[in-house]
Amino acid sequence: MELPFIHWLQQTLDQESGDGRSLSNDAAELSWNNDTGCVVTTDLIADGSHFDLAVTDPRRIGHKALAVNLSDLAAMGARPIAAFVSLLLPKDTASDLARELMLGMIPLSLRASCPIQGGDTNCWDGRLAINVTALGEVPAGQSWPRSGARKDDILMVTGRLGGSLLGKHLDFEPRVDEALFVRAAVDIHAAMDISDGLSLDAWRLTQVSGCGIELDESALPISPAAFELAATSGKSPLEHALHDGEDFELLLAVSAEDAAKLTHLWPFETPLTSIGRVTAERGLWLQNRQGIRMPLVPEGYEHGAS
Amino acid sequence: MELPFIHWLQQTLDQESGDGRSLSNDAAELSWNNDTGCVVTTDLIADGSHFDLAVTDPRRIGHKALAVNLSDLAAMGARPIAAFVSLLLPKDTASDLARELMLGMIPLSLRASCPIQGGDTNCWDGRLAINVTALGEVPAGQSWPRSGARKDDILMVTGRLGGSLLGKHLDFEPRVDEALFVRAAVDIHAAMDISDGLSLDAWRLTQVSGCGIELDESALPISPAAFELAATSGKSPLEHALHDGEDFELLLAVSAEDAAKLTHLWPFETPLTSIGRVTAERGLWLQNRQGIRMPLVPEGYEHGAS
Repeated sequence: MELPFIHWLQQTLDQESGDGRSLSNDAAELSWNNDTGCVVTTDLIADGSHFDLAVTDPRRIGHKALAVNLSDLAAMGARPIAAFVSLLLPKDTASDLARELMLGMIPLSLRASCPIQGGDTNCWDGRLAINVTALGEVPAGQSWPRSGARKDDILMVTGRLGGSLLGKHLDFEPRVDEALFVRAAVDIHAAMDISDGLSLDAWRLTQVSGCGIELDESALPISPAAFELAATSGKSPLEHALHDGEDFELLLAVSAEDAAKLTHLWPFETPLTSIGRVTAERGLWLQNRQGIRMPLVPEGYEHGAS
Repeated sequence: MELPFIHWLQQTLDQESGDGRSLSNDAAELSWNNDTGCVVTTDLIADGSHFDLAVTDPRRIGHKALAVNLSDLAAMGARPIAAFVSLLLPKDTASDLARELMLGMIPLSLRASCPIQGGDTNCWDGRLAINVTALGEVPAGQSWPRSGARKDDILMVTGRLGGSLLGKHLDFEPRVDEALFVRAAVDIHAAMDISDGLSLDAWRLTQVSGCGIELDESALPISPAAFELAATSGKSPLEHALHDGEDFELLLAVSAEDAAKLTHLWPFETPLTSIGRVTAERGLWLQNRQGIRMPLVPEGYEHGAS
């Protein structure tokens, strides 16, 4: 299976971007500019845990496998450079499935200027798993940390939150362009992508930054999907926005001045919203529509928490 | 499961090498020197395909998962820089298994100066799979190709071949130091690591280099394990040396002058042996002990060939 698939992939990548050549070597060599740092992220997604192959178009799965990594690069403020894809394929459908996964990955790879430069393909008796490693570049030593949030910083978020289960968890567009715009415009104190739910990820940011966060209920951008899900879930749209996993939006901590600057300059259709502030006092709070501050218990998706 | 394991791993890596810090971020940032190329390799190994968890110490599996990647870096002449480890763990034993795998990986990571700088940990209902991505550096544009073998080059191999099934396929030491010595000493025309068997991999070298290769039967360094296996396998030790997979030795094509130089200077216990020569005529041959040249049919392990 491996050789025909690799040949197909080489030809396909060559046609798309002239980047298939490196697949025939033991490893890919990337050129590197002076004064740039190399940012590396790796994420594995598996059938039954992160998607359900039985009911999902494999192209959407391929897209997701790359997108989660590009979201991690965006969260570091890095420009994508290259991706490396390892496939672990169920034997019976391996060849067709591998092609469909890659066909789901390639359009995003092109949009994000992140060529697929290598990988590893294997078959087995088990279910599908995909590992993607993505490399990005930043000005040396200037990748965005999670740990730099400071008292009086404004907390901002891209997009709208909640209800990703209805489709966004597969089809989301990683905020690569938005991150590069933000990097060029302002000084980011702390950043991460919201993968496990706003409340849980914001709480993590407080833990590593040694601070607290107050979220404004009235400011939270709640997605239409959160409202749709709330109609049947028994939870409120707010709860979905606070606690649902896999939003893959950027969470940014910046000075009040830079927050105003970003709001003023923001050129994207995807919204950027100020949703709260950083406090010296440690903790996580939600200020409700009546202006009352209540402790917010972090909830969300803990991968493999079983 | 994930958080306690990450904390344990951070502490363990910090104690060993001061390198646990980066695990808490979305991605790791690596510093990069001027005029260096970045070499990237990724390999996935899975239970039932590349090892049998039921009968194998997980530390040996962890070692192998990293070692196959370091072998790929060595095959490119690259100095290891960092490794990134994704685990897909069977739920019931996830926590203990993750620790044992890492404890198998860490000693090799230290010996090869290749710190583990990030990764991803997941549990599921399926069997164990491990993906490792390793980064290395080379002088820019000077990673060793597979495609540069030329007429009259000497073909050299590290170590001894065959019978890796008896243990070496798990416990092999990737030829990182040997590759860095070779890079410093001579000009390598083509290189690869023998992962699927000498005959199959040598044939692949001829395909991409557009040449032929003549192997000398009398020169082949046959491992004691090949003799041991031959006692019961119905094959000869020579057949094991030619066709067994997972030797993970370096196969190098160099000028006759450089081959002599390497033989003269070689400082390692692991042998380096001249085993044949490159021909303009395309094909693969074995010259037997009587000096008769016969076509050699490439055989070996094709991953996922089912």
